[in-house]
Amino acid sequence: MSQTVNAFAALERGGPIRPWTYRQRDARPHDVRIEVLYCGICHTDLHYVGPWGRDYPVVPGHELVGRVTETGPSVTTHAVGDLVAVGPVIDSCRECPPCLAGEETLCLTVATSTYGAPDRHGDGVTRGGYAEQIIGDERFVYRLPDGLDPAAAAPLLCAGSTVFAPLRHWEAGPGRTVGIVGIGGLGHLGVKFARAMGAHVVAFTTSPAKAEDALRLGAHEAVITGDGEMPANRLDLIIDTVPAVHPMTPLVQALATDGTLVSVGLPASFDVAPFALAVGRKSIAGAGAGGTRSTREMLEFSAAHGITADIEVVGTGDINTALKRLEANDVKYRFVIDMKR
Amino acid sequence: MSQTVNAFAALERGGPIRPWTYRQRDARPHDVRIEVLYCGICHTDLHYVGPWGRDYPVVPGHELVGRVTETGPSVTTHAVGDLVAVGPVIDSCRECPPCLAGEETLCLTVATSTYGAPDRHGDGVTRGGYAEQIIGDERFVYRLPDGLDPAAAAPLLCAGSTVFAPLRHWEAGPGRTVGIVGIGGLGHLGVKFARAMGAHVVAFTTSPAKAEDALRLGAHEAVITGDGEMPANRLDLIIDTVPAVHPMTPLVQALATDGTLVSVGLPASFDVAPFALAVGRKSIAGAGAGGTRSTREMLEFSAAHGITADIEVVGTGDINTALKRLEANDVKYRFVIDMKR
Repeated sequence: MSQTVNAFAALERGGPIRPWTYRQRDARPHDVRIEVLYCGICHTDLHYVGPWGRDYPVVPGHELVGRVTETGPSVTTHAVGDLVAVGPVIDSCRECPPCLAGEETLCLTVATSTYGAPDRHGDGVTRGGYAEQIIGDERFVYRLPDGLDPAAAAPLLCAGSTVFAPLRHWEAGPGRTVGIVGIGGLGHLGVKFARAMGAHVVAFTTSPAKAEDALRLGAHEAVITGDGEMPANRLDLIIDTVPAVHPMTPLVQALATDGTLVSVGLPASFDVAPFALAVGRKSIAGAGAGGTRSTREMLEFSAAHGITADIEVVGTGDINTALKRLEANDVKYRFVIDMKR
Repeated sequence: MSQTVNAFAALERGGPIRPWTYRQRDARPHDVRIEVLYCGICHTDLHYVGPWGRDYPVVPGHELVGRVTETGPSVTTHAVGDLVAVGPVIDSCRECPPCLAGEETLCLTVATSTYGAPDRHGDGVTRGGYAEQIIGDERFVYRLPDGLDPAAAAPLLCAGSTVFAPLRHWEAGPGRTVGIVGIGGLGHLGVKFARAMGAHVVAFTTSPAKAEDALRLGAHEAVITGDGEMPANRLDLIIDTVPAVHPMTPLVQALATDGTLVSVGLPASFDVAPFALAVGRKSIAGAGAGGTRSTREMLEFSAAHGITADIEVVGTGDINTALKRLEANDVKYRFVIDMKR
């Protein structure tokens, strides 16, 4: 049965988040309906209530943990009462080579975002996790492994996946030196994952306080960019989480021969001298959150290594304050909304 | 014995190339002295007689073929009378990991350029192939395989190596679709090499005439950039030879998932939307000419497949005219100076 959902939405571009109600579709055969318990606040949410939004109202939220309340008749992977999680992608074509490989975030037809995207079956626009419930196909709903705190696990679904996937793809591990640039929501999880994978971890931050904190999070070294001496020809891989345009040439120079800088922050442009890449046959890549295969692996890895986000839990009445503080970079390291508060 | 060498040099920044005489050092134990027969005119030469030059006079020329006239007492790989070739690097540290792997162009101490660089043994500044002779260590002197026309082979040493090395490193070959952007000195050899390696070759050029020519050179398809319809999600590898800043986002969109665009043209900046890279987990790399291992392989490959450059031979009196025409992009596809003319 379709249901009325109490949600929190930006009713117009740049507007504040307000309570808003919408009708959620009937469950399709493979759908899972989920009571949202915790939803992380991602930097993307700021973009979508701001400049990137279309089709207002927008219900943000694409890193959430909840409990299954209903399953369509064909669902086999989840049962009512299960603790589950949802990330930034809720559907894809399922037929292209990346989808067939479980890399649905690279879907050649462009994967369907968990919120603000047209539903593939013509059923309106997708609505995210700033809500009492959410619905989606079982393929894109993940079992939450035992032992992970549900609130602190929510940010794993976007922030975590976005650093875990490239760390795995570019083979962070023993004998490899890995840089993590920007110690925020993504970066602090990048440090934890890279360390747990067995790499030698170098954190880069502009903040002396965060440099110290990075060592606590697991970094072997912390470099204060702009100020401190930069490593040279030493890092096999850099995961750069900074979303603002920033000087990348010193980071490229820190890479070893054949090293790769992976930008997951995706600034508006790359401020880099091409010649610096040629000197050591280096690369700059772009990447985003992992597909279903990577996300499942990331959740199991997190449970095995006891990794969750460092969070600040807020109530539903504090969403606008939290968004403002996030915009000002004032959070260590991720806001999570307790949807029951 | 040190010798007086008749050469052609830029006597000051931006000045014309004029006859100039210098004293060449005595042969060191591993040195080979070479009578230059043919020297290609590379785009780099324009830079070094122009904005990048230091320590004038500069004797340009770093793709040359000649005949051995003297060997130091420890030389084992070449004999007087041999036809040999020299590329853009004439020395390196020989101790760092890239040097030990025969990838001396990636030397961590920065390889010594064939001209305009300080000699590693304090013996002045290196002087290039716009001269009746050149001297260098046997390690950086290549046997010219039988069957290669000496004049048309000269440009293989820089233009050829600069496209061959990344084609090999990023594994162009059967079952792979490879784009070559810019059909000039480098690009026309890129088309020939990629075709001979067994790849499906797509040429990109802004010139309808060159698009047609690219098919003659071996491309399976030719795309007129800016005008024609661009491929999408289809190329595994692109070698981009364009030295001017140009729109790279359409090229990145032409790459398949996990594809790499290798810039060997090395413009002043990359005009690319980072988001376009993330959508398909794509990369932009920088690269230059190959080291001694790659260069030897390239020369053998060229001989085996009958590949040389399409050239226009000029006399020593025509160097300035040729440089001007090169600057205006008016050459198909490489000028080679006949040093005996």
